[in-house]
Amino acid sequence: MSLIFILDLIGTMAFAISGTLSAMEKKFDLFGALFIAFLTAIGGGTVRDCLIGSTPVTWMQTPSYFIAVFMGFMATILFKRRVLRLKKTLFLFDTIGIAIFTVIGIEKGLMFGLPAYSAILMGISTAVVGGALRDVFCNDIPLIFHREVYATACLIGGILYALMNYIGLNENLTILITTLTIIMIRLLSVRFNWSLPKSDLSTEK
Amino acid sequence: MSLIFILDLIGTMAFAISGTLSAMEKKFDLFGALFIAFLTAIGGGTVRDCLIGSTPVTWMQTPSYFIAVFMGFMATILFKRRVLRLKKTLFLFDTIGIAIFTVIGIEKGLMFGLPAYSAILMGISTAVVGGALRDVFCNDIPLIFHREVYATACLIGGILYALMNYIGLNENLTILITTLTIIMIRLLSVRFNWSLPKSDLSTEK
Amino acid sequence: MSLIFILDLIGTMAFAISGTLSAMEKKFDLFGALFIAFLTAIGGGTVRDCLIGSTPVTWMQTPSYFIAVFMGFMATILFKRRVLRLKKTLFLFDTIGIAIFTVIGIEKGLMFGLPAYSAILMGISTAVVGGALRDVFCNDIPLIFHREVYATACLIGGILYALMNYIGLNENLTILITTLTIIMIRLLSVRFNWSLPKSDLSTEK
Repeated sequence: MSLIFILDLIGTMAFAISGTLSAMEKKFDLFGALFIAFLTAIGGGTVRDCLIGSTPVTWMQTPSYFIAVFMGFMATILFKRRVLRLKKTLFLFDTIGIAIFTVIGIEKGLMFGLPAYSAILMGISTAVVGGALRDVFCNDIPLIFHREVYATACLIGGILYALMNYIGLNENLTILITTLTIIMIRLLSVRFNWSLPKSDLSTEK
Repeated sequence: MSLIFILDLIGTMAFAISGTLSAMEKKFDLFGALFIAFLTAIGGGTVRDCLIGSTPVTWMQTPSYFIAVFMGFMATILFKRRVLRLKKTLFLFDTIGIAIFTVIGIEKGLMFGLPAYSAILMGISTAVVGGALRDVFCNDIPLIFHREVYATACLIGGILYALMNYIGLNENLTILITTLTIIMIRLLSVRFNWSLPKSDLSTEK
Repeated sequence: MSLIFILDLIGTMAFAISGTLSAMEKKFDLFGALFIAFLTAIGGGTVRDCLIGSTPVTWMQTPSYFIAVFMGFMATILFKRRVLRLKKTLFLFDTIGIAIFTVIGIEKGLMFGLPAYSAILMGISTAVVGGALRDVFCNDIPLIFHREVYATACLIGGILYALMNYIGLNENLTILITTLTIIMIRLLSVRFNWSLPKSDLSTEK
């Protein structure tokens, strides 16, 4: 499981960078930017742990997450020109992050004996809630609500994971296939500009 | 208690419809609309369960709530014209919903041995927090803060419940009277345009 | 420990007043204003308790906090002219509040066996999350993100507390030094207009 842990930390750092960038756009002070970095990176897992009742929440028990957030934050503050130029690399890390977060969330849900549908929801929550909280605290409408096939990729990956888990496939293989599926769907969706239909209240045709 | 459970699901569906309508107004994509529907319908109960420490939270343990949310969401997306025309019916369901949610919240609080004042707060929280979260995530000022005698109806119902519970009235009767009181106050308040005084910071007369 | 408890209630009341004033600025109705007062005053401690898993959360178990909030709320509504004229006194109470809240959060974290870095974070969270939630629910960008050395004072106080606790200093002395340090940093920072550097995304020089 150490590969998962390393990928988890990479995802955490990528999320912290995205949080710091959002805060810089709003010209928050340094503490505010660190707070948003932290919220973005650990918000999803925290909400998952509170809902499941797995407390104290994960990041309180090992400093690794905190260090990953801090490194992402410092790198963004100190090298913002270079970070901005690395947009494609960041996007890749971020995508790996949501894939890993989804898998970790589902595994934790199943470990606590939740039914499959709840475990899948915990996976999606781990992956998307941090970004939604970042946007709410920056006073924006959450991005995940109107851009990209993002949560949908997590949903498809989650259902796949539950199916493979149900038929008893090897765990590492299950994790690998789920992760790659989520990453592939997101990369393809951005490459080909896929997006979900918008909901709309107007009734004219 | 099966009547309560059915009314609970009707309330959940009504809340999901109101969440979906809010998201459609903001033109969220389909995932975003489903997320808001879910948040509106189960947000209040989730916060209650986290505060009490009753985890994993209720909707994780039975798919009924999820199915109710999904049905409300699908109905709104597919039949939006008809849903919009049903405004009065929806309002009635919504009102039944908050009345039932208040009762369920209080009962859960008392079941966990909370003092009466906390149990009443849990009832109000169950009924109003979902709608407040819906508005925060849609980047609006929560409606419950500036319209209608809504939370007040829950408060009066809650105090009534605690009193009847204290004097040892039959539980079903207590539930019935509380529910009907909340429904009646809300219907009357909308009919006669009652509203709470606004707070105001300006000090001129 | 009864001095701490009294200071805790004074802090709670000061936070409730600040919440009520925010709500009045937005012309919320009376229920909305009470909700915001409550959220501001008990939000930080509630999030701390949920993250640690100390449930039912503190304010559910004794009515003291609720009464303190209600008194702060009523005083603000009834005597708003006088409350507004007391700005300096309020600011002092608020400052005492965040200092006490920080200490209480750290103590609770250590009591639950958290590592020092998590306990410090729990202290900061207790002190600043209530105000952040107040601003999010009022649809503003949280003040703590772009004004004053506020959370930084809590951070420095928290580190100091952990150090003194580590070298085994007397608890009451530790509490006293931490509280006074936080209060002094905040008073000085406002007096001399200290602020953290702003983060900024633009890369021109």
